[in-house]
Amino acid sequence: MTRAYNFSAGPATLPEPVLRQAQAELLDWNGVGASIVEISHRSAEFIAVASRAEADLRKLIGIPEDYAVLFLSGGATTQQALLALNFAAPGQVVDYVVTGHWGKTAIRQVKPYVTVHVAADGEPGGFRDIPPRAGWQLSPDAAYVHITANETIHGVEFRDTPDVGTAPLFADFSSSIASEPLDVSRYGVIYAGAQKNLGPVGVAVVIIRRDLLERSGQPRADIFDYRSHAARDSMLNTPPTWNWYLAGLVFQWMLAEGGVEEFARRNALKSQLVYQAIDGSGGFYRNHVAPAVRSRMNIPFFLPDETLTARFVSESKDAGLLALKGHKAVGGIRASLYNALPVEGAQALVAFMRDFQQRNG
Amino acid sequence: MTRAYNFSAGPATLPEPVLRQAQAELLDWNGVGASIVEISHRSAEFIAVASRAEADLRKLIGIPEDYAVLFLSGGATTQQALLALNFAAPGQVVDYVVTGHWGKTAIRQVKPYVTVHVAADGEPGGFRDIPPRAGWQLSPDAAYVHITANETIHGVEFRDTPDVGTAPLFADFSSSIASEPLDVSRYGVIYAGAQKNLGPVGVAVVIIRRDLLERSGQPRADIFDYRSHAARDSMLNTPPTWNWYLAGLVFQWMLAEGGVEEFARRNALKSQLVYQAIDGSGGFYRNHVAPAVRSRMNIPFFLPDETLTARFVSESKDAGLLALKGHKAVGGIRASLYNALPVEGAQALVAFMRDFQQRNG
Repeated sequence: MTRAYNFSAGPATLPEPVLRQAQAELLDWNGVGASIVEISHRSAEFIAVASRAEADLRKLIGIPEDYAVLFLSGGATTQQALLALNFAAPGQVVDYVVTGHWGKTAIRQVKPYVTVHVAADGEPGGFRDIPPRAGWQLSPDAAYVHITANETIHGVEFRDTPDVGTAPLFADFSSSIASEPLDVSRYGVIYAGAQKNLGPVGVAVVIIRRDLLERSGQPRADIFDYRSHAARDSMLNTPPTWNWYLAGLVFQWMLAEGGVEEFARRNALKSQLVYQAIDGSGGFYRNHVAPAVRSRMNIPFFLPDETLTARFVSESKDAGLLALKGHKAVGGIRASLYNALPVEGAQALVAFMRDFQQRNG
Repeated sequence: MTRAYNFSAGPATLPEPVLRQAQAELLDWNGVGASIVEISHRSAEFIAVASRAEADLRKLIGIPEDYAVLFLSGGATTQQALLALNFAAPGQVVDYVVTGHWGKTAIRQVKPYVTVHVAADGEPGGFRDIPPRAGWQLSPDAAYVHITANETIHGVEFRDTPDVGTAPLFADFSSSIASEPLDVSRYGVIYAGAQKNLGPVGVAVVIIRRDLLERSGQPRADIFDYRSHAARDSMLNTPPTWNWYLAGLVFQWMLAEGGVEEFARRNALKSQLVYQAIDGSGGFYRNHVAPAVRSRMNIPFFLPDETLTARFVSESKDAGLLALKGHKAVGGIRASLYNALPVEGAQALVAFMRDFQQRNG
């Protein structure tokens, strides 16, 4: 089979040129006589790969020098726990703005360590909108304010960086990092699992304003201490080298394609195509999210009934459009349109949607 | 360049047939139209890969049904912290037997959470031997006793499972798991980063006697809770799917080659070859570890001076013998002889050692 268009929410589609390069080098990387998977993370060869990945990510996103960039094992959930351990005193108040499933998960990770104050909650509205900033109840003494920049299940995305006053803003950017220009200086911490826009699962990127590393946080193992990771260039322990390397190849590809400005253009185009197909379907396809905060990355939508939904999932797969089944928490269909999904993929989806509606509408 | 013999201490050499299969499948796994790196961990396809990996590991090592097997992001260091969080009450006494660098690291991870009692310490003897069991000062009320089955830097390996009484025995098997038959039932927890004998870096295996999961431990994030990981079959969050898949291919290869009995035979042969070359060199090569506890996995040895050491490292690399430079903590040379290093690799090393001595002795 040839490669299909893959709409998986994560782990997600990767750029084919990146996979081809990784494939070509898998048994002998750069002529060293071994795979990149098999060489020491402390070798000059791997350190060069790691350093270039950091430099390329800094260039791609525009990360100022007063921010540390860490590449750590695992995904975003571990970082959610580490935020409280590193940046809040035991029991200190932290503010969370909940706009979907992942905001709730983030709270679950920190509850043992801090006093969680939900400053705003989209759940009463079914997570169909982001509570207006004016109504947020921020705490005067919060260690930080946490948001989820894009919610992959509910399809809700912050389209502007909120002003939260003096507390640093921490944001889970797992599903929208590097998808459009970003003013990093507005944030205290930006973190992201790589498996959506940045590369393969198994490595997370954490971008930390360096002054925050001076906070004492709370008692924690060395391996949970961002200061230790920063002091050792993310090599406190053996990092996930292959995953880091593959993310680095994705960064190179993104820069070569034109950087985040170009991906912002493509992502806007892809998501507009799909939303227009939904909104123009006369109600056959429905998306419930308020237009101003509709996600460009993950588009959940619904068909008239379960039978049609199941048929859509099955027939789209046969047509070479993979992983369109919605998350079990909400059902329906979900199309994830990350950086590595080409515009042609969105066009193929829209063509399929129109054809499917004609046959079943 | 062709593939060299790779003596890296980890990330380490992988079986060439495994890399060839991963290479062939990297753009289209099993005809699904996407890479295994790009499909959902919750897809039927990946769940089948994950389940088979667990079943194969159970078969390979002989893991009883009353043990849970987890595949978690990252390496052994994170697990070291989680041991205390999951299995000891706040401040409870835990016993550590220190036989090298990694035993000390293990202690650093738990100090914020428990009262560490060093029951035996090889450091006064330069980590050249394992303190005799009779001299261990075990605590009557320890939550557990921790050992490092094999020390990769100091080259010291437990050749028998110590009897530690009623407290469960926890062991870091990162560098010797699946290298010979093992009686899992003697242990409460066995954990290992995969990157030495089991596969690629980025995934750790944790084998836990299930009754221990009933311990309340101490306050911790959900992502740090082994019970949560066990209840969700290691898919509490997105697992490092490619790393897990590649480890699974290594398990299949090991079973096809004859299982741990066969690797025990090969590993004994390889390490004997190298130790004989050292011991038979008339003092040109020296290993300081007591013969009864010499590691079969990692053999540190020393040449008469720094100049010869540097020359050995350089010339061996040119001869296609990679990563023989010793760890910076001890210097000298280190040959790691994990499962995937073929017997021919050890033979080539020994031939090189003899030739080098002839030319420089």
